[in-house]
Order: sequence, then structure tokens, then C-alpha cells
Amino acid sequence: MNQRLVDLVITNGTVHTPEGSVRQNVCVLNGRIVGLADDANTPPAARVIDARGLDVLPGLWHVHCHFREPGHTYKEDFTSGTTAAAAGGITFCIDMTNNDPHPTTLEAFELKRSTIAPKALVDYALYGGGLYPKTVAPLAKAGAIGIKVFNTRHVKEVYPYISELGVVDHGILHELYEAVADTGLLCAVHHDDSEWCKRLTFRDYINPGKTSNRDYMEAYEKGYMYGHGMAAGLAASTYYARITGVRLHVLHMGVMPPAANGLVRFARQQGVDISGEMETAALFMTREQAEKVGPGAYAWAYAPEANWRAVHDGTADMLVGEHAPHTLEEITPGWQDNFSVPLGVTGAQEFIPMVLNAVNQGQLTLQDVARLCAEAPAKRFGQYPKKGRIQIGADADFTIVDMKAENLFKAADMHTRAGYTAYEGISTQGMPVYTIVRGSTVMDHGKIVGQPGHGQFHPGIAAT
Amino acid sequence: MNQRLVDLVITNGTVHTPEGSVRQNVCVLNGRIVGLADDANTPPAARVIDARGLDVLPGLWHVHCHFREPGHTYKEDFTSGTTAAAAGGITFCIDMTNNDPHPTTLEAFELKRSTIAPKALVDYALYGGGLYPKTVAPLAKAGAIGIKVFNTRHVKEVYPYISELGVVDHGILHELYEAVADTGLLCAVHHDDSEWCKRLTFRDYINPGKTSNRDYMEAYEKGYMYGHGMAAGLAASTYYARITGVRLHVLHMGVMPPAANGLVRFARQQGVDISGEMETAALFMTREQAEKVGPGAYAWAYAPEANWRAVHDGTADMLVGEHAPHTLEEITPGWQDNFSVPLGVTGAQEFIPMVLNAVNQGQLTLQDVARLCAEAPAKRFGQYPKKGRIQIGADADFTIVDMKAENLFKAADMHTRAGYTAYEGISTQGMPVYTIVRGSTVMDHGKIVGQPGHGQFHPGIAAT
Amino acid sequence: MNQRLVDLVITNGTVHTPEGSVRQNVCVLNGRIVGLADDANTPPAARVIDARGLDVLPGLWHVHCHFREPGHTYKEDFTSGTTAAAAGGITFCIDMTNNDPHPTTLEAFELKRSTIAPKALVDYALYGGGLYPKTVAPLAKAGAIGIKVFNTRHVKEVYPYISELGVVDHGILHELYEAVADTGLLCAVHHDDSEWCKRLTFRDYINPGKTSNRDYMEAYEKGYMYGHGMAAGLAASTYYARITGVRLHVLHMGVMPPAANGLVRFARQQGVDISGEMETAALFMTREQAEKVGPGAYAWAYAPEANWRAVHDGTADMLVGEHAPHTLEEITPGWQDNFSVPLGVTGAQEFIPMVLNAVNQGQLTLQDVARLCAEAPAKRFGQYPKKGRIQIGADADFTIVDMKAENLFKAADMHTRAGYTAYEGISTQGMPVYTIVRGSTVMDHGKIVGQPGHGQFHPGIAAT
Amino acid sequence: MNQRLVDLVITNGTVHTPEGSVRQNVCVLNGRIVGLADDANTPPAARVIDARGLDVLPGLWHVHCHFREPGHTYKEDFTSGTTAAAAGGITFCIDMTNNDPHPTTLEAFELKRSTIAPKALVDYALYGGGLYPKTVAPLAKAGAIGIKVFNTRHVKEVYPYISELGVVDHGILHELYEAVADTGLLCAVHHDDSEWCKRLTFRDYINPGKTSNRDYMEAYEKGYMYGHGMAAGLAASTYYARITGVRLHVLHMGVMPPAANGLVRFARQQGVDISGEMETAALFMTREQAEKVGPGAYAWAYAPEANWRAVHDGTADMLVGEHAPHTLEEITPGWQDNFSVPLGVTGAQEFIPMVLNAVNQGQLTLQDVARLCAEAPAKRFGQYPKKGRIQIGADADFTIVDMKAENLFKAADMHTRAGYTAYEGISTQGMPVYTIVRGSTVMDHGKIVGQPGHGQFHPGIAAT
Repeated sequence: MNQRLVDLVITNGTVHTPEGSVRQNVCVLNGRIVGLADDANTPPAARVIDARGLDVLPGLWHVHCHFREPGHTYKEDFTSGTTAAAAGGITFCIDMTNNDPHPTTLEAFELKRSTIAPKALVDYALYGGGLYPKTVAPLAKAGAIGIKVFNTRHVKEVYPYISELGVVDHGILHELYEAVADTGLLCAVHHDDSEWCKRLTFRDYINPGKTSNRDYMEAYEKGYMYGHGMAAGLAASTYYARITGVRLHVLHMGVMPPAANGLVRFARQQGVDISGEMETAALFMTREQAEKVGPGAYAWAYAPEANWRAVHDGTADMLVGEHAPHTLEEITPGWQDNFSVPLGVTGAQEFIPMVLNAVNQGQLTLQDVARLCAEAPAKRFGQYPKKGRIQIGADADFTIVDMKAENLFKAADMHTRAGYTAYEGISTQGMPVYTIVRGSTVMDHGKIVGQPGHGQFHPGIAAT
Repeated sequence: MNQRLVDLVITNGTVHTPEGSVRQNVCVLNGRIVGLADDANTPPAARVIDARGLDVLPGLWHVHCHFREPGHTYKEDFTSGTTAAAAGGITFCIDMTNNDPHPTTLEAFELKRSTIAPKALVDYALYGGGLYPKTVAPLAKAGAIGIKVFNTRHVKEVYPYISELGVVDHGILHELYEAVADTGLLCAVHHDDSEWCKRLTFRDYINPGKTSNRDYMEAYEKGYMYGHGMAAGLAASTYYARITGVRLHVLHMGVMPPAANGLVRFARQQGVDISGEMETAALFMTREQAEKVGPGAYAWAYAPEANWRAVHDGTADMLVGEHAPHTLEEITPGWQDNFSVPLGVTGAQEFIPMVLNAVNQGQLTLQDVARLCAEAPAKRFGQYPKKGRIQIGADADFTIVDMKAENLFKAADMHTRAGYTAYEGISTQGMPVYTIVRGSTVMDHGKIVGQPGHGQFHPGIAAT
Repeated sequence: MNQRLVDLVITNGTVHTPEGSVRQNVCVLNGRIVGLADDANTPPAARVIDARGLDVLPGLWHVHCHFREPGHTYKEDFTSGTTAAAAGGITFCIDMTNNDPHPTTLEAFELKRSTIAPKALVDYALYGGGLYPKTVAPLAKAGAIGIKVFNTRHVKEVYPYISELGVVDHGILHELYEAVADTGLLCAVHHDDSEWCKRLTFRDYINPGKTSNRDYMEAYEKGYMYGHGMAAGLAASTYYARITGVRLHVLHMGVMPPAANGLVRFARQQGVDISGEMETAALFMTREQAEKVGPGAYAWAYAPEANWRAVHDGTADMLVGEHAPHTLEEITPGWQDNFSVPLGVTGAQEFIPMVLNAVNQGQLTLQDVARLCAEAPAKRFGQYPKKGRIQIGADADFTIVDMKAENLFKAADMHTRAGYTAYEGISTQGMPVYTIVRGSTVMDHGKIVGQPGHGQFHPGIAAT
Repeated sequence: MNQRLVDLVITNGTVHTPEGSVRQNVCVLNGRIVGLADDANTPPAARVIDARGLDVLPGLWHVHCHFREPGHTYKEDFTSGTTAAAAGGITFCIDMTNNDPHPTTLEAFELKRSTIAPKALVDYALYGGGLYPKTVAPLAKAGAIGIKVFNTRHVKEVYPYISELGVVDHGILHELYEAVADTGLLCAVHHDDSEWCKRLTFRDYINPGKTSNRDYMEAYEKGYMYGHGMAAGLAASTYYARITGVRLHVLHMGVMPPAANGLVRFARQQGVDISGEMETAALFMTREQAEKVGPGAYAWAYAPEANWRAVHDGTADMLVGEHAPHTLEEITPGWQDNFSVPLGVTGAQEFIPMVLNAVNQGQLTLQDVARLCAEAPAKRFGQYPKKGRIQIGADADFTIVDMKAENLFKAADMHTRAGYTAYEGISTQGMPVYTIVRGSTVMDHGKIVGQPGHGQFHPGIAAT
């Protein structure tokens, strides 16, 4: 035992866990948290961040990123995507699978992993693509954080819903659940009932020529697009989860009709090992904003009360502000025909500011944020206690926030290649001012100071 | 007001309703109940049935009959089928739709109706076949009692599951629900998730050559055949019922895994207008008996406690002993390959004796029988108060039972053309001794005394 | 079997049971129902009541009467009380115990019984007074319908709360429960926590001189008088009911704060054999009316929604419009000091008209009335099937009502000796037009045509 | 910021919070926790405790102590009592009020406080005695941690149930709740229904001469002593808590019949601000042991499953091993007449070893212990975050335990003046090896090394 200079101390801040908040200093050495102390007993440090008036959160997670690499790097790549995330206070990203090639085989997964290795600014994990029951085990051993299943096909089979990635046959879905259950990983599912969605949407919208963005929004609110089909698919899926014992992770809560929240509650009561992520657009994206950005968003908050209830009563385990960028050129035709353009939204940079704004509005506490955006995902994805909480021995990931800072979202400030933000023109209060990954500052008061390649790959719990 | 001779009085019996039992005489004139009286005040009658020591129940219903006409009258026709029903104490039958031609159009429905008109011994109603959303309204107007949907295809597409009758596309299912909701009729659904069932059953049974009747029984108990796929289909269906407002009637409760009972409860809590019929084979068919009759039954009672609970707590609204006959020649190859033969069971004649035996064993009361086998179906199918209860003005349908009578099921006594009974060799106590339809005795102590053509067609509530 | 003239037929009416309504004629001979028939098959009768346009209900019960005999016949006696009841459509009354002498011993019970024998116009039963555990068995054998316990003392120990009748010691209460459990009778309890009520009411109302009727009404709404003390007493009592197994009957639901309804629900969930009667003043007595009649009522409907919910969800098993008369002279000083005058209300004649008015307003159905005011009390008090339902063999008790008839309550029309009605000036629609007790008409369109002594005593189930 | 020598570091141990366990070192300066660190970053210290192989818990609480001072110091005093507590791993005690004089007035409370000030080895708080509604506010301002109400009188009014301290009048109880609600303190209640208990116990035990210890044990199991009366009292009390808004703390969970746990659940569902402490004798004291120690215990675990369920589902918020000593001379006559001797039990020294033994048996985790015996009471009694959790800034209170250490309870090792232990002869595994209060070691491997007077008084949240 021997006292030496540490690399970094964060002083004068209030440190938050899900259970409480403590005024203490945090000491970092070699990328890990090595000490928590009061002022008088804080060791000397090579670098000091004075967090007076700031709040120190565990490094926040974004578990639903589409960074589009490999295959569609004109929309986003791992550098632009993780830059946006870092700017938004995110220290850990989980990337989705609708790439080209899609990581549904060991070879494609390893190609993706090696391609992006030099490019990330923040830490990350990768879903393996759930398509072939036989490749689930190799993907798990290769480090997939979970298996993502697109239990859907888009009504017109437009990207990002790669048709061949859609697993709509429940027999195959069941076999995937069996295979994922054997690995102990989460199976994250975008549920749907594509036949239902196609038939109704064509009948009432596409065939009659009701395709404008306004029509799409109506169709969304009525439960056609991302609607009742998703909930019905969820109802069947939870049954299969129950009989296979798979650990199910429900994607797109809040995007589905509110009744889906009740289905998650029922499944949990029946003993299904189920978690879910609440899409924050379903909490924050007003009708007015949705009309303003048109095809720049695919969902809006038509039932926010029900979704907040699901957040507050624990039905939803974590929050996510989906990041699924396309270029402006791709989406602009959506004003006329929203059913034929790629559907997406930006969120990597906007997610945490929107969440902090909700804290300022009294809808959440910073302790909730520490739980919903850090500890809960870290635990559910098997990365705890290395990640997810500020405690001795953990990685020194921090999101330091200034709850008084004001913000106005505008495209010019965004790091995504999409060229726009779904939250254009929205004012918020409460901003991340430092994004720190394993002791290194990646973002400092809005300025990106990290380098591509700093971000590390974190394998799932089944990796060899 | 003027006292005259009535046609029939039933004296000295105990008359049962769901709420109670009363020692009273029942007076019948012109096929309707015109009086209830004590001994001293009972009018003279042309005919007297002395029910001393007997119990008088409202005419009992069988809501799940496959009388195979038109198209497969070598298996059964309306005369042989309703004869078996009458022998079994049934006064009202509902016939299913997997005929040739199947009554999914107005023309086919009317053909069926006219074909069978001269043939029935007891009263009956006919399901319309749910296949084309556009023909639902005409079928309803033509008198369909409800719309039956086969949301299934058999793993090898073997009859009785006529492939073209299977509605497995949830978009079409939804449109059928919309159309049926507009009529106010019940939509009765054999739920399934055929892809699931096919994939798993082929993988684990048919492909490895595990096809014997014993293998089939194992597959059934494990939830492969008539199993988890049905429950998952039910989970999705109840969601669509909820958003369309259709009055849903769940077929084959008890045949599905017990978790399906919980899905019905959940749907009801969510406000779905749902009812269900419990298959009595799932209560009474022992493993031993199932092994004995082999392909002569397609289901056995592997979870009777859960199913009794569903009966006692009201999850199941009514009882049914499915009647789905095939010839011995057709089913005998099933000992070797049960997946390739027509699946069925006999029940028209056996249903009520099995139920009465359960009364003698304390599992039900005669008041329960009056509810589960008469009043509840009559109400749910819109035939109340004309049918379903012994009260003034109702049709004079009675099933008079002798709770002390003993019975041994044997093929030689059966009226079905199937040539066998699934309950061969089973002893029971409690037998129907009179089947009376609109005042006319059709069965008297086991002897058929009614004539084909006495049975009348009863249209559903949407008939013009 | 032999057709003869019956005594009475009620023709052309609609007959109601809790489960349904049937257009049928009812035939009566020797005071019992001997036939139900359609028009063509109704026997000739000595007397015919043409109920065209009327509704025929089973004879309705009033289970909470204080007819004040013996001891306080200047307030009411059995003739005046049962006359009022007959006028109000009541065929069966249960009388309470705060008489002088009070029927807490065999001798006093038999004195009461013989005293009133020649005086009643309608049928009746008598509570035995619960005071001495040792006299419970003799009272039961002597025909008490149940045992009534005053688990209360009035704050100033003013009649009708005879101080010596109050059982406030929970040890004695427990022993009474043990004794009543042994008899199988109901134990009907006016719950309270008298110490609580006295201390709070004296502190905040009586001592500061806030004693006017307005003050009293405020104290009632706040839960001081007939308030939280009753609910707390109920909470403890249900616990003792649970451990003794007594059949508990909760008096004064609706008079207690709404939370008491929740306590009844909880007790039932815990397996307590519990029933309760909802006081209709808690549904119908408006604040305006209460202010108008002042000390002529002791309760008003400050939480009607909660109480209606308890009626509709089955928490309350039956309805009652308490009849507890005092003379105008006695109550008039209550305008100044409502805590020092006898507390009461009139209800024998008003109860059913108020209930029928609620039917016309859509809050109840006539089927509900048949259940809540006839079948449920007849069953719970052990008088079914002799009483409570229109069926063969039952006593020919009927309340025939004209749902179109209009009514205005005024003191001059009242038969009680109280000299006033708590519903003075209230207009209602729906009136009893015949009160028929065992085949004899006691009231015909408002005119009393029965005689004292017609009413019969009906012993409880433990009578020898 | 400046690095210096700290007073104490605890190295190599596993530190537990309710949410997790971390291998880290704890640094203490001036009686407070000033640092948490890994080995390499732990500062030098004046004293090092090597906790290798040991578990470091937050200082554990004992919230139900009767240290008998002033008035009965021949049974115990604050030095002997806190010595026993320190030996048992306790760092914080809450003392009860049945002293002479009893601290129900400001004067008596201050006398007690000053009397014991020089005598405690561990930290402590004092209940104020709830008797006079008017003295509640002064007691709160003087630092009472809560108000203790004896809502009971012993059947024979034997000490420790000082008759004058018993508040059995619910009107007064209500006024105490009002007064305590105004202070924001907890009102801790020993519930009862003394009339019930007296009447039944005299009737069935004392009067018939069934008074031996064996008889007493039977009476206890049957719910006579500490039985149904307590539960009924609780039922009424929670109602008054609901209407006054008092923060209620239920004493003696587990001692009451298991149905009491359900009453706590129900109250919580109804919105009552309620907590409860589970008596560990109701979990651990076997019938065999109870027979062995006879009048040395007043309760035994006749329903341990129900009580464990209440611990695991959160119905009980905290654990307590009541310490209520009497001398052997006092209790020995209890073998013959257990109803006439002081009832008590020892627990200060035995509580935590019994709890740790349960951890070794898998019934609890050390994280549960950190919650149930430290964080939960510290929060509920308003002492958090100064007490209750190992975090920067908190008092340096620790209970360091050796989960492998074996123990055999014997009177000779006990520090209580009682002269015996209720757990005589019981073997356990898992022992506290250090009791550290504000950085000072009070007990080290069983040896008392602290001094009277080290223990500090901690006022409640309403203290001026």
C-alpha cells in the first residue's frame, strides 16, 4: 500500500448512483476508478476536473445505434456515429446488425468487428444478427453482446429493413430462441406481424394513395405502421420466450401502441425473463416537431402518459433514443411518399440532452438516469460491474453534466452524417459537458477531444 | 284464459337451472313450455312422462360437431350425426365448416342448408366458413350462427384441415374480425401458428421417423401437435380481437397447453369480448384410454387439474365433447404414422354421459351442467331465451337424465358412421334417458324414436 | 293430477328473477306458487290480478326495521310499522333489538314474539339481541333470524343506543362470535369504536358548542359521527370473524366512510364469511334534502359514487332503507343540539319507491332489485327457497310495481307514527301497486287492505 | 487538496451495500469515511485493519432495546446493554421507554438522556414515550427518535408492561397519531386489544390453572398471548394511521400471528405510510429451544415460513432481535406461572450472530443484512446518510464479520445483566469480529475495547 499520483480526479461534483447522491471526489488511474474520497483525502492527480456545480453520472449507454458500417457508410460510420454519441454524453454504444454484409455469420461479424476497430471514439459492443439458428453459438463465442432479430419486414421491403434479415417464420424464431437461450445472451427483438401490417397499410393508405408524411403520421397514430402488428408479434413472441427460456429484450417500446406495455407486464408476471427499452421519441417527440421534421422521424409521442407510466413502474428497464440515420437526400421524397423512403431518426447526440431536460422538468431524477441509462443496461447486457456504476474497480466512464446549461438543437451542430436532426429547433436545459471513457476525456464542453480507436470492443458474456 | 289439455307434462322430476333446482312439473303445448306447476295444479296432458327419480335439464347443446355433410358423408351425415347426438342427450347441435364444398360463400352455405334440411333429428345451427372477408355479411344474413375460422394448417395438410380453408395470414384474419364484428356474430377460431408447428414437428418427429401413435401422444403432451403454436396464435388473435371489437369464441380449450387458459383470462381482463369452450377429452380422456384407442382420439387429458380450474373459475364458458369422426379404415394406419391420418375423435353420443359421470364424481353439479351445456351456449350464440332454460315461452327442449343409470361405452352401441368410439370400454354412471326437442321425444331410454327432418335450423342473430 | 280452480293468478305481467325476465302468469293456491304458465294454459282462478304493463317482483324484503315494540310503541309498533312497510311494497321485515325489554334473553325474546304476533300485516323475522354469550344458543333455538350486536355506544348514550346493549369489549364480542358461529346464524353488527367517537366528537363539536344540525352534518361528513370509528371497529371485527368463523353481516354500509367498503372486500378476500347491507340513504339522500329534514335523518349521501360501486361490484350484498323512527317532538330539539336527540330516519315506506326510482334512472335493473331486495337476503338469512324467488313451491309473496307511476313523498301519506318522512317533498317514479303476502293482497294501489295478524313469524335456521 | 495520513484503513475486505459488494479499502479520518480505494491508491494510515477473508458491513442497528435505565438497572443499564450490543456487532441502538420514570414528559426524557450520556459504548437514540398528546411536540424537539406507544396492557398488568403507559383508548391513540404526524417522526406501536387478550387468556388459561411455561407456549401458538388481539389492534390502528397521516412503525412483527403480515400489506396498498420490524425470534427460536429456556423467551417461531416470506417480499422493512432482559430470579417462577412473571428475551448480543447464521444457511445475503439491519432503519429513522451506508462523508460505523467463524451461545459469555441467554447452547456460524463506531473499535474479536461514553446520542429529525 503506497500513495502515488493518480491520473485524474474529478472534484467538487455530486456523484449519482440509482440509490443516492454523494458529494465526493472520484480518482482514476489507468482507466479505472481507484478511489472515492472527500476533499481533504483526495490524492494529487496529473489532471483535475473541477465539477463544482456539476453532476457526475456513470458513463451513459446508448443501446440502439445503427452506425451503418459496413455497407452504408455514406449514411454514418463508426467514427461519425461515435463522435455524435460522444458529443451527446454517451460512453458506450451497442450497434445493430442491418449492415452489408450483415453480421449473421461468424465471418461477417468478424469482418465488421475488424473494420470498425480503429474507428470508435467511445466503447461499444455489437449485436450478432439473428437469422440462422446454427450461427448463434459462433456469434456468441465471437463476442456478440446479444442476438438481434428483425421479426419484421417493411411493408415495401425498403431498407433499413433488409428483407433477407427478417425472421417472420415463427418456427425459425423459436429455433433462434432455443439457440440464444443456450448461450445465455439476450435476444433483442424488433417484433412485428408483417402480413398484418402490409395488408392493412396497403389497403387503407398505400393503395388509396394516402402516402404523404401527414398520412404516414396518421397511420402511425392509428397503429398501422409500427403499430398493432408489432404488439401482436410481441404477444406471440413472449409465449415462445416462455417455453424456450430465452432472455428476451423488447426493442421499440413506446413505438408500439401502449397496450404493448401491458403485454410486457403480463409476460413478466408469467415468469418470462424479459426486459425492454423505452424509445424516448415516444416520450419527447411532439406532434408539432414531428410535422416539422417529417420523414426525419418515424415515430412521435402520441401516448406519452402511458409510456411514462411504463418507465416509472419499471415495465421498461432502460431508455434509448434510437439512432438510425439516413441522408437528407434519401428521406426528402418521404414528404410525398413516406412509405417508400428509409425510415429512421437521429438520436445519438440528442438522447441524453432530451433526458436531462426531462430531469429538469421533474419527470425523472438523476438517480433514475444513472439507473435507466447506465446501471440497468450494463447489468442486463452482462457488463456489470466493469461498467454501469461509479465504484472502486470499475472502468472510469463518466458523463458529467451541467444541469443549468441551455441547448438549442440545430443541424449544423450535429456530428451525424445524416445532415439533419429530428429535434431541430428544440430548446432543452441540462447538457453533458464531459464524456470520459476509461479515464480519457472524449468530449469537453461540446468539443470532441478524443480520437478514433480509443473506443474498445466489449464482448458479451458468452465470448470465449 | 281457458284451461285445456296440454300435449305433454313431465311430472315428478327435479328441474334444474344454473341457479337452483326445483321439484316441479313442466307442461308443454305446441312445442313450447307453457306451464310450470306443482302436482295439484298440473293440467291434464295427452302424454305424461313420469320423471320420478330423474333430473330434468334444459335441452343440452353440442357446439362442436363435424357431421361431414356435404362432401364426406361416408364418415358421417346429418342423420347419423344427429342420431348419435340424440342418443347422447343432445337437443341442439352446431355444425362446423370443413365440408366439400365448404360453406364459405352464400351459395355453398345455402347448398349445405338445403341438403341437410330433411335429415336432422335434433335442432341445429350452422357456422359460416370464415375465409373471404366479403362473404361474411351474406353468410350472416343467410343465418350462420357464427363464423368459424381455421387459423391453421395441418403439418402435412391432411384432412380435416382443408388447406384452402386455413386462414394463416393475420391480415386476412384481421379483416375477417372486422367483418364479423360488423355482423354482431361470434367469430369462433381454431387458433394456430402453423409455421411453428410444422417446423418443430417435422424437425423432432416426422423427419426422425418418430411417427407412431405413441410418438404422436408424446408430441401432443410436449405441446407440438395442438400445442404451443395454438397458444401463440391465440395470444396474437386476442390482440386483434381487442382492436377490432369482434366477439371472439375460443375453440379447443384444454386441447391447447394450460397456459392458453391464462391467455383467455388476460384477454378478458383487457376487455376483449371473449368466450371459450373446454374440450372434455382434456378432462376425461386418460392416458390409458388414449393408448387403447390410438388414432381414434387426437387429444388426451395430460393437464386435467388446470383445465378443471378453468371450468370452475369461469375461464371456460361452456363444455364440448368434440365430434369429428373418420372411418376406422382411415385412421388405422395412424398406429404407424399418426401424422398422416385424419385426426379426430367421437363425442356426439359420449359427451353428456361423460359429463354426468363427472357430476356423480363431484366435479360438477347438475346446475353447472344446465349452465355449461345449455344456458351459456344459448346466450352466447344468441338463441336465448328461446333456447337454453326451462321457463315459460321457451322451446320445450329437455334432456332428462337418470343419475343412477350405468353405462359401458362400446362401438356396437354407437350411431356414428365412424365405426368406433374413443371411449370404448369406459364405464360411467348417469345417463340421458329422454331427449326431447320442441316437445317431441327423439330418444327414449336409449331408443331413437325421432325422425329425420324433425330437427330445425336456427339462424344466427344477424339473419334477415 | 287434477285440474282445479286456483286462488289467484297474476296475468299479463313481466316476472323478474336475478337472471332474467319472463312474460308469464303466476298461479297461487293456498298461499304458495303452484304454477307458472302462458296465457293459454293458465288455470281459472278465484281472483285475477291483471298486471298488464306492470312488473312482478318476488316479495321484497326490508332487513333493518326498528318497529319499537315492546317498549317504545309511541314511536312505532308492529302494526304501524308493518303497515308502512306494506304500503312501501315490503312483504318481509326483520326487526331489530333495541326494545324495552331488549330481546337478549329467551324470556324477553318470547315476550316480544308473543306481543307482536297479532299485530303484523306482513311476514317478519326477529333478531335476537347479542349481549350475553350464554343466551345466544337459546335465542337461536327460539327462532332468532340472527343475532344483532350493537358494538357501539352513542357519544351521549342517547336512545336508540341503549347503553347496556352496547358490546364494546372485544373479549365479549369474540365470545358472542364464538357462540353465534356455533348456531350457524348470521351475526349482524353495528360496528363502532366508541371511545374514538366520543373523544373526537366531544373535543371538536360538543365541547366547543358546535351542536346544531348543520354542525352534526359536517361532523358526519368528516367521519366523526357514524364515521371512522365504525370503520376501525369493522377492521377489528372482521379479524375476529376470521378466527371464529362466524358468519358476519355488516350493518350500515354507506353510513360508514367509503373506506369501509374496502375493508369488506379485503375481509372477503381473506376468507371471512361476510355480507353487508348498503343503506340507501347513502345513495339517495342529497345534502339539500338532509338540510331540509334536519334531525329527521342521521345520514346523507356524501360519497354516492363509492357506494354505488360497492353495490355494482357485489361488495354490498343487499340494499336496505333503514327504518328507525322517533316522534317529531323527540327530534325537533335536534336543530339546536343534534347530539342529544334520538338519531333515526324513516324508510319502511320510502325504501322501495326510492329504489324503483333508481331503476328508472338507470342505476339498477329490476333484475338487480329481485336480487338485492329479495333473493340475496332470503338466501343469506336462510329463508330460501321458501322466500326470495318466484318459483313453484315458494310462498306467494309478490311486490307488483308500476314503473311509470309517479310519487311525491309527504308526511300525510306516511303510515309510520313518526309523523314525518325523511324524504318529504321528493318526487320519484316507479311505485309498488300490490303487496302480496302468501297470496293475500295486503296493499292495493296504495290502499292497505290487509289485516294485523296476517303477517307470520319466520324463525331462523337454528330454531328447534 | 492535500494528501495526508488517515486514522484508519480497512483493507482487503469485501464491502457490502444493499445493491452490491465491492472489494475495496475504506479510509477513515476523524470518525468519518473519507475514502474508498483500491490497494494501490489507499493512503497511509495510523491504523490498519486487515479484513482479508472478512466482510465489511455498514454499522448494524438494533432498533428494539430495553436497557432498563433509569429505574431497573438491576436488570440492565446502558453500559451493560451497549456492551452486549457491541459484543454482538451493533453500532447503533434505539432504546425503549418503559423506564421509571418513563420518558413521556420533557423532564423525564431529559433526565434519561443525561443519566445515560456517560454510559454508552455505541451510538444510540431514544424513543419518547407516547402517553400525553401534548408532550409529543416537546419530546420531539428534545430529540426523541420517534414516539413509542404501548397500545396494550399485560393480562395481569405485570412489568414490563407498565399499566399507566398503556394507551388502550383509541381516542387518545388517535390524538397521539395526530400529534406525532405533526412532528414528522415515526410512531412505533406495540399494538394490542387488551380486553380481548385478558378475557380469552383468563378464561382458557389462567382461570383453569393452565399457567405453566408449556401452557404459556400453547397459548402463544394459539394466538392468545401476543396473538390475535395484537393483530386486531393493528387492523384498527392502520385505519387511524390512514386518516391521520402518521408515519406508523409496527413493532413485533412475527410475534403477532402471520395474518398480521397481511394487514401490513393491505395498509401499505391503501397508502398508509407504514413500516415494520420483524422479530428474529419468530424466525429462529425453535420449539425445542423455547422449551429449554422456558420463561427466558416470550415468543417462538411457530410460523417461520410466513415470516420469512414477509422479510423477502418487503412487508417487513427491517430485522430486530428484541432485547428485553430480566433477571433469572425474576423469570424462574415462570416455569410454574408464566403469566405472572416479567416477559422478555435477550437479543442485543445474539441478534447479529443469528442473522449471519441465516446468511450461511442461504436465507439471506449479506446485501440483505446491509439493507435490513443498517440502511433501512437509518433511512426510516431519519439518520441517513450520516448512518446506514458505507459511503464518503458517512460516520465510520462498521460491523466487520467473519462468515466462517463458529459460535456457541452460553450464558457465561453474555454481557447482559440478565444472567442468561435465550439462545443458550445454540451453535451458529458467522460472527462479528469488529464493532467500529465513528472510527473507533469498540469490539475486537469478541473483546470489548471501547469505553462507556464513547457512544453518542443521535436526536430525531424533529429536534431543534
